Amino acid sequence: MTAPVTILVNTQLSENIGAAARAMKNFGLSELRLVAPREEFPNKRAYDLAAHAVDVLDKARIFATTREAVADLKRVYASTARPREMVKAVYTPPEAVAHMAEENLPTGIMFGPERTGLTNKDVAVCDAIITIPTAELASLNIAQSVVVIAYEYFQKTCNLQPVTCNLVHKSEFATKEDLQGFLDHLERRLDEVDFWKVYEKKAKMWINLQNIFTRSSLTEQEIRTLHGVIAAVIKL
Amino acid sequence: MTAPVTILVNTQLSENIGAAARAMKNFGLSELRLVAPREEFPNKRAYDLAAHAVDVLDKARIFATTREAVADLKRVYASTARPREMVKAVYTPPEAVAHMAEENLPTGIMFGPERTGLTNKDVAVCDAIITIPTAELASLNIAQSVVVIAYEYFQKTCNLQPVTCNLVHKSEFATKEDLQGFLDHLERRLDEVDFWKVYEKKAKMWINLQNIFTRSSLTEQEIRTLHGVIAAVIKL
Repeated sequence: MTAPVTILVNTQLSENIGAAARAMKNFGLSELRLVAPREEFPNKRAYDLAAHAVDVLDKARIFATTREAVADLKRVYASTARPREMVKAVYTPPEAVAHMAEENLPTGIMFGPERTGLTNKDVAVCDAIITIPTAELASLNIAQSVVVIAYEYFQKTCNLQPVTCNLVHKSEFATKEDLQGFLDHLERRLDEVDFWKVYEKKAKMWINLQNIFTRSSLTEQEIRTLHGVIAAVIKL
Repeated sequence: MTAPVTILVNTQLSENIGAAARAMKNFGLSELRLVAPREEFPNKRAYDLAAHAVDVLDKARIFATTREAVADLKRVYASTARPREMVKAVYTPPEAVAHMAEENLPTGIMFGPERTGLTNKDVAVCDAIITIPTAELASLNIAQSVVVIAYEYFQKTCNLQPVTCNLVHKSEFATKEDLQGFLDHLERRLDEVDFWKVYEKKAKMWINLQNIFTRSSLTEQEIRTLHGVIAAVIKL
């Protein structure tokens, strides 16, 4: 999938240009176009907010009009929350990214100025609208909108590991035999100190106790530690 | 689904607290907890960046420690990109939100300070980790991380079917305060029997030991049982 170009139209605050660049870089986007930014660009505040995304700002190109900024593109999406009286598709961010991936064309995503958003004239240039679903009375900052859409782009395109739940561990998970060895050790010691007191209650209590450890996905190292705890701690 | 609480730990810049509040409100989150913010709070810069989310800041509660901030919660997620040598589930934002919806418990999401992120000690308190997939050499701003996770929360809940918790348990899940009470008890006893032997090793060993219990989703009944085990078993 061709990475889309980010187009910021008439941005008022340079901080937002910097924050947008930072979000872009975090999520694998690199091409920034600025249409008539209100403050002189480049400037320090943009760079301060860009953090590691210096290269995104260095390479940013400035255009006088949206028309020029989109000239070489084949698809343009307008990011806007405001309903427009236009016959135009409105997508959520993941829907828009799915379309981009499907079409795989040179694409731009256009974001309007902070206070007013894109004009109808600018939206008219766009093929479709992206609206980020929000709670009522939302007030999305322009850089926050870039975060969400860039994030969705990256989720779609990155080769996410196929694991859903990645347990981070240095040590291998223990076998059931190792786990059972620990549970046997624990049970023996609890018997020795007469933990159960009322023997009839043991069966149920012991099942409950085992469950605490059974569902922890213990590693080999942790099993060794737990053996150590029992050995060190129970004084007979 | 119960909306998760946002917990910002040792935040350096008040602007980030404001921007986080704005993102929260945009995506239907309202409860903000601040653990020892580095600048005096409330302050003007936080409110300037919060835009319409004044109420989120007005209601924000300040805690001296993460421990106090999570005391009444039953699940806590750590937002961190740094791999940790801990045995703990790592979820993407949509996976984490799916878990939250399934469990429907009082939940917090913890974000660390700007430069350093969460300490291992803070992560050890958490049930699982949320890592936002990013491009290489990413540098996610804390408020941008809040945007992504809050966005995913809203996407999940805005068309969510009513869910019931399918976890089978007779007893309620323990609060973090209850869990911490047990861990304190265990640590005290291990200190008393000089379990650590080489004191320098304690910090790491203790984090590993805590993680075994932190990720077990212990119920109130199980916490009581574990207190009982320690009390019965350790003979001084």
